[in-house]
Amino acid sequence: MNLTIADVRLTPILIADPPLLNTQGVHQPYTPRLIVEVETADGVTGVGETYGDTKYLELARPFAEKLIGRQVGDLNGLFTIAEDVTVDGSRVSGQVDVGGLRGVQTADKLRLSVVSGFEVACLDALGKALGQPVHALLGGKVRDSVEYSAYLFYKWAEHPEGVPAERDDWGAAVDPAGIVEQARKFTERYGFTSFKLKGGVFPPDEEIAAVRALAAAFPGHPLRLDPNGAWSVETSLKVAKELGDVLEYLEDPALGTPAMAEVSAGTDVPLATNMCVTTFAEIKEAFTRDAVQVVLSDHHYWGGLRNTQHLAAICRTFGVGVSMHSNTHLGISLAAMTQVASTVPNLHHACDSHYPWQSEDVLTERLRFEGGRVAVSDAPGLGVELDHDRLRFLHRRWLDDDGTLRERDDAAAMRVAEPGWVTPSVPRW
Amino acid sequence: MNLTIADVRLTPILIADPPLLNTQGVHQPYTPRLIVEVETADGVTGVGETYGDTKYLELARPFAEKLIGRQVGDLNGLFTIAEDVTVDGSRVSGQVDVGGLRGVQTADKLRLSVVSGFEVACLDALGKALGQPVHALLGGKVRDSVEYSAYLFYKWAEHPEGVPAERDDWGAAVDPAGIVEQARKFTERYGFTSFKLKGGVFPPDEEIAAVRALAAAFPGHPLRLDPNGAWSVETSLKVAKELGDVLEYLEDPALGTPAMAEVSAGTDVPLATNMCVTTFAEIKEAFTRDAVQVVLSDHHYWGGLRNTQHLAAICRTFGVGVSMHSNTHLGISLAAMTQVASTVPNLHHACDSHYPWQSEDVLTERLRFEGGRVAVSDAPGLGVELDHDRLRFLHRRWLDDDGTLRERDDAAAMRVAEPGWVTPSVPRW
Repeated sequence: MNLTIADVRLTPILIADPPLLNTQGVHQPYTPRLIVEVETADGVTGVGETYGDTKYLELARPFAEKLIGRQVGDLNGLFTIAEDVTVDGSRVSGQVDVGGLRGVQTADKLRLSVVSGFEVACLDALGKALGQPVHALLGGKVRDSVEYSAYLFYKWAEHPEGVPAERDDWGAAVDPAGIVEQARKFTERYGFTSFKLKGGVFPPDEEIAAVRALAAAFPGHPLRLDPNGAWSVETSLKVAKELGDVLEYLEDPALGTPAMAEVSAGTDVPLATNMCVTTFAEIKEAFTRDAVQVVLSDHHYWGGLRNTQHLAAICRTFGVGVSMHSNTHLGISLAAMTQVASTVPNLHHACDSHYPWQSEDVLTERLRFEGGRVAVSDAPGLGVELDHDRLRFLHRRWLDDDGTLRERDDAAAMRVAEPGWVTPSVPRW
Repeated sequence: MNLTIADVRLTPILIADPPLLNTQGVHQPYTPRLIVEVETADGVTGVGETYGDTKYLELARPFAEKLIGRQVGDLNGLFTIAEDVTVDGSRVSGQVDVGGLRGVQTADKLRLSVVSGFEVACLDALGKALGQPVHALLGGKVRDSVEYSAYLFYKWAEHPEGVPAERDDWGAAVDPAGIVEQARKFTERYGFTSFKLKGGVFPPDEEIAAVRALAAAFPGHPLRLDPNGAWSVETSLKVAKELGDVLEYLEDPALGTPAMAEVSAGTDVPLATNMCVTTFAEIKEAFTRDAVQVVLSDHHYWGGLRNTQHLAAICRTFGVGVSMHSNTHLGISLAAMTQVASTVPNLHHACDSHYPWQSEDVLTERLRFEGGRVAVSDAPGLGVELDHDRLRFLHRRWLDDDGTLRERDDAAAMRVAEPGWVTPSVPRW
């Protein structure tokens, strides 16, 4: 068995994304992702997926070259490579603006997001070569399925007129009734039993009303609200007080650890985050100040599935909860999330996933939610298969783009509908 | 390939141990260890090793029964089994006195020490079945050899007269000259370049003199002193002040996190520990109080190699150093330590090992130190082979023992030479 990496293929793609609203703007009609294929000398191929904006691609390309000739199981070594990769002869360092709601934007984090795509592809290939599911390479699953929550968004019925876009059948949701209707669709289609509302879009009172409407429609079900740090400490505490009886947790009500620590000190509602703790470097301050009670791991940010396990161990050690965050992603990442989530003993909250919003995928068979859960595959690797025709089609879309969609920019997308729109300053309310 | 566990064999043994002195007394002439063999349905056998005192055996036996029929790669599941194991119908809980210098003695830690023996055996079997070294199952080595330090002990030339014991050729070491002589033998035989002196045996001034003598004999070499918490805060600070210019770190000068935090606040000499941070539950207080700067992981305490990796990740996250602790152990554990140490990027200190003191082993071929380092095996599994004849011989010794040696008790061993000896109360000085 030859586990040497013989080839690495990087395929940037653009995938359809509905007009979902957040505090910075609206999702573009198409958003970039990067598909990674790692092939061993024996012809076993593993797949991974990560962010696809240019800055990720710039780092992924020289990274891929350095992988050739290495062992596919040398996962610890990926971090060393990441440190050594240069772009145009320079080591990427300091702050790196990739836009969006991704927490702190540093070169280290950018590197880890790139590592994650390769790590997942290597794990997939290694698992296939050894005849083992990825979870077995992570010490084995402790559950047979992973629970996800319905990820509710304020949204328009369609993208602005005149903009090339795919259609979706979810309809508009811009008020409490619309959100409840959307939640019902989620339960009907996928059986989700917990709900997360992406907030920070409308004034807090309107979002409080939406959560209240959800609580009335789905009594006793876990509810979450995530304004992506759009609120002041004062507003955060007001919302926590008004919704404390129905919230499972409040996610990133205010921006940054100092503000979150202040909110945390003033309420019993648990605070979750995928914005103030998105790197190992941010943990110490946040945990020692008791700023957050739940960390939502995005395995892309954290550098892959094994780092996600380390994060979970850190959270367990410090009495902090853990669950999983999601940005727009495809089935490869959902499979990866499900595999690692199945191995984390202290996963006590349903994970987030945008997957139901993605009408397009690069797999021959979509992953399915049943009863709000994804079954943990025991097939070798991730248990998914790449649809090369679809991959080519989505890559062609990326090639044909004039560059405007290759960087995800929710504010720019919003300006198409509202020409004067600028990213609101924080706190917005 | 069938990775189902078909058989588990537990073999308690007694191994020769030289008359090494510590603050509680002296090593017994023979000390208990437990050898674990896990065999898959395909007949692939993996080996592990852990503490062998009765309390470990009591827990290991029902644990072994529960393993039959499970997958050998189900390592995360070992912790669940450990929680469920009962002894005489009761779940072991609370404090469990197993004696010795092993830090906090809780049922949880006892369970993890038992898990570690099974985890290593499972990893060895899994690696052999998949044709992968254990380090590859841990994400791959980041170095080709692991550095160890010379573990210097005050010792007698031989065990008390009339006590059945093996002889050793190290001679006595009860003063600075003896310690330097011992250190020279260590460098000649194994090439070690850093030195740790087990202290807490003689009044601090004598041990200071010994370290000074080492510094004079081996200028510039890393030196450590470990009195196993025998000193008061005041004494600890005095020693730190007097040896600050030559110590790599001071190990457990005082007992417990509050005392260590006080020492830490009063000196720039880094403090290491294998006594106040020996479980995940002890980390939060110690790290938030900056009580220690280096954690010495004993993979037995921490529940195995994967937990050791988690510990290393936690240390990295909190800016705390990490290295490895050793109690009396054989080649299986040295191989396991070397495999996991090879995967830890933030291992910046030479590891401890008692192995040079062990004249007996259960392997067909002893592991070797060259230039103070053990080469990381790339053979499938741990890369060691059990010598079944030796195992039977050492097990026979355990069977023939009337029970007095089956529990390691350094104070009892000391009473043979000094009838009035009782374990000194702490702080001793």
